[in-house]
Amino acid sequence: MEKLAREEIAQWFQQLQDSICQGLEAADGNGKFLQDNWQRTGGGGGRTRTLTNGKVLEKGGVNFSRVYGDTPEKITNALGLEKSHFYATGVSIVLHPWSPMVPIIHMNVRYFEMTPLDDKTRQNWWFGGGIDLTPHYIDKGDARFFHQHLKKVCDHHHPSYYLEFKQWADDYFYLKHREETRGVGGIFFDRLSSQDGFTKSQRWEFVKEVGQAFVPVYSHLMKKNKDLSFGEMEKQWQFLRRGRYVEFNLVWDKGTKFGLDTGGRTESILMSLPPQANWQYDYQPAEGTAEYQTQQLLKKGINWIDGAGN
Amino acid sequence: MEKLAREEIAQWFQQLQDSICQGLEAADGNGKFLQDNWQRTGGGGGRTRTLTNGKVLEKGGVNFSRVYGDTPEKITNALGLEKSHFYATGVSIVLHPWSPMVPIIHMNVRYFEMTPLDDKTRQNWWFGGGIDLTPHYIDKGDARFFHQHLKKVCDHHHPSYYLEFKQWADDYFYLKHREETRGVGGIFFDRLSSQDGFTKSQRWEFVKEVGQAFVPVYSHLMKKNKDLSFGEMEKQWQFLRRGRYVEFNLVWDKGTKFGLDTGGRTESILMSLPPQANWQYDYQPAEGTAEYQTQQLLKKGINWIDGAGN
Repeated sequence: MEKLAREEIAQWFQQLQDSICQGLEAADGNGKFLQDNWQRTGGGGGRTRTLTNGKVLEKGGVNFSRVYGDTPEKITNALGLEKSHFYATGVSIVLHPWSPMVPIIHMNVRYFEMTPLDDKTRQNWWFGGGIDLTPHYIDKGDARFFHQHLKKVCDHHHPSYYLEFKQWADDYFYLKHREETRGVGGIFFDRLSSQDGFTKSQRWEFVKEVGQAFVPVYSHLMKKNKDLSFGEMEKQWQFLRRGRYVEFNLVWDKGTKFGLDTGGRTESILMSLPPQANWQYDYQPAEGTAEYQTQQLLKKGINWIDGAGN
Repeated sequence: MEKLAREEIAQWFQQLQDSICQGLEAADGNGKFLQDNWQRTGGGGGRTRTLTNGKVLEKGGVNFSRVYGDTPEKITNALGLEKSHFYATGVSIVLHPWSPMVPIIHMNVRYFEMTPLDDKTRQNWWFGGGIDLTPHYIDKGDARFFHQHLKKVCDHHHPSYYLEFKQWADDYFYLKHREETRGVGGIFFDRLSSQDGFTKSQRWEFVKEVGQAFVPVYSHLMKKNKDLSFGEMEKQWQFLRRGRYVEFNLVWDKGTKFGLDTGGRTESILMSLPPQANWQYDYQPAEGTAEYQTQQLLKKGINWIDGAGN
């Protein structure tokens, strides 16, 4: 076993929550996070922090949790696993801005351990996470900035990370029933353990740098776009796009489904839902409009860094 | 085989769609249904009818479909079934009124056949369906009226139907992650075939009477409640309750999940979603308010006919 202990990881994640909340409050200029501490029956708990009615942010959550105990039977049965203890800790964020010109953002970084009850030497550990951007109106320059920053983070740790995790995000943040991506993607990764000769510290350093990238990247996008003008049309489109966000989270997002199904804390899980979402039967934006252009870009496999044009 | 043929059933359902749309237009007094015909790759198709911005109804759909062909592999594999042909036809309705004082309603009636490719004599057939009411504010008198009417329909066909199907609805229209029912329930049934000595005609007569009950029951509830006054507080509560409706449909409703997962027509399936829904972190109505009283009644097992009080 390496020295890196789970409590050290959990502590770092908790500090990450603190620094992200501070960074977001500063970038927003008005909103303050409120905190709910909660305990989990069976072991552990969390700190849910939510912000409502800020200057730039309308509704958002930055959650920290650290839960452990017997792995729920629903999970061991579904995955055909032996009885085990689990330990999971992480930070999870979704932010919905007021302005349709500012993108929705999501980030999650997490650490997981699974230890079979009958043989504690066979402990599994892994990291997972991701960060993806959902503009109501896609600005190719913003998408490029976002992906460039993520590529830089990835490149610090392995030359294949960015392309692999970018493709994983394209596949994960995908609404199959709409045949569209949630937004311009980002990176997604899971089950990062000691495969391919990586050490635990190497994986951990990567995950930490992803977490640290959040505030500078999103603050820039907030600042750049928050004063752009918009009207009723743009608000209506925002509400429809938020409807798609709801569809993704409730229909396809594995974390959400898993949490709701295994007795996770509902209000913390569903803090990801927007303050308001609309649905209109078979709405199709007219060709040539900004809404139409955005819809045409909700596709997998776009090279945002140097292949999407201007 | 009895004489009752699937095309006869499909034709009756199509006429039911016509008569329900006429009945709802009359009750609304202003709204008109628009029709979308669609074809299914692989066999069959449907008529989706939607109404937007009526006088009483803000958004609603009344769908007819009749689809058939090879049973999708996703289904035969998931259920461990042999290769087969299927035939499915039915009518499905969800209506969202403008006023928070008028309840949301849902009804579905359907017929299904499954015929193994290698032995056409082993054809399975069954009926399914249900009708349930989701008041934003529960009025016990309305809930009693609704259940009394459904009980009368059930009692015409079998003395055990109402209690059995009412309990099935309590269990089905349930948000496990909220520990609350969707509304005041109603009836739900599935896989009604020739068990317990029933003939196909007997099952069919029951399903027809359920379908025919829809307009008189809901017209009464529209008329009785549409002119009740309400304010901003009631609208906000309505939007939150519609959020729960979205959660049920996208997280728990088997028909919705199955349809989206197997390539059903997305816009027809998701016509059930409300025009606008809101989410607010951990909203709790204050004790003693009408909102609180409604929340206290979102429970399984309430005897609405003579056990809920006034």
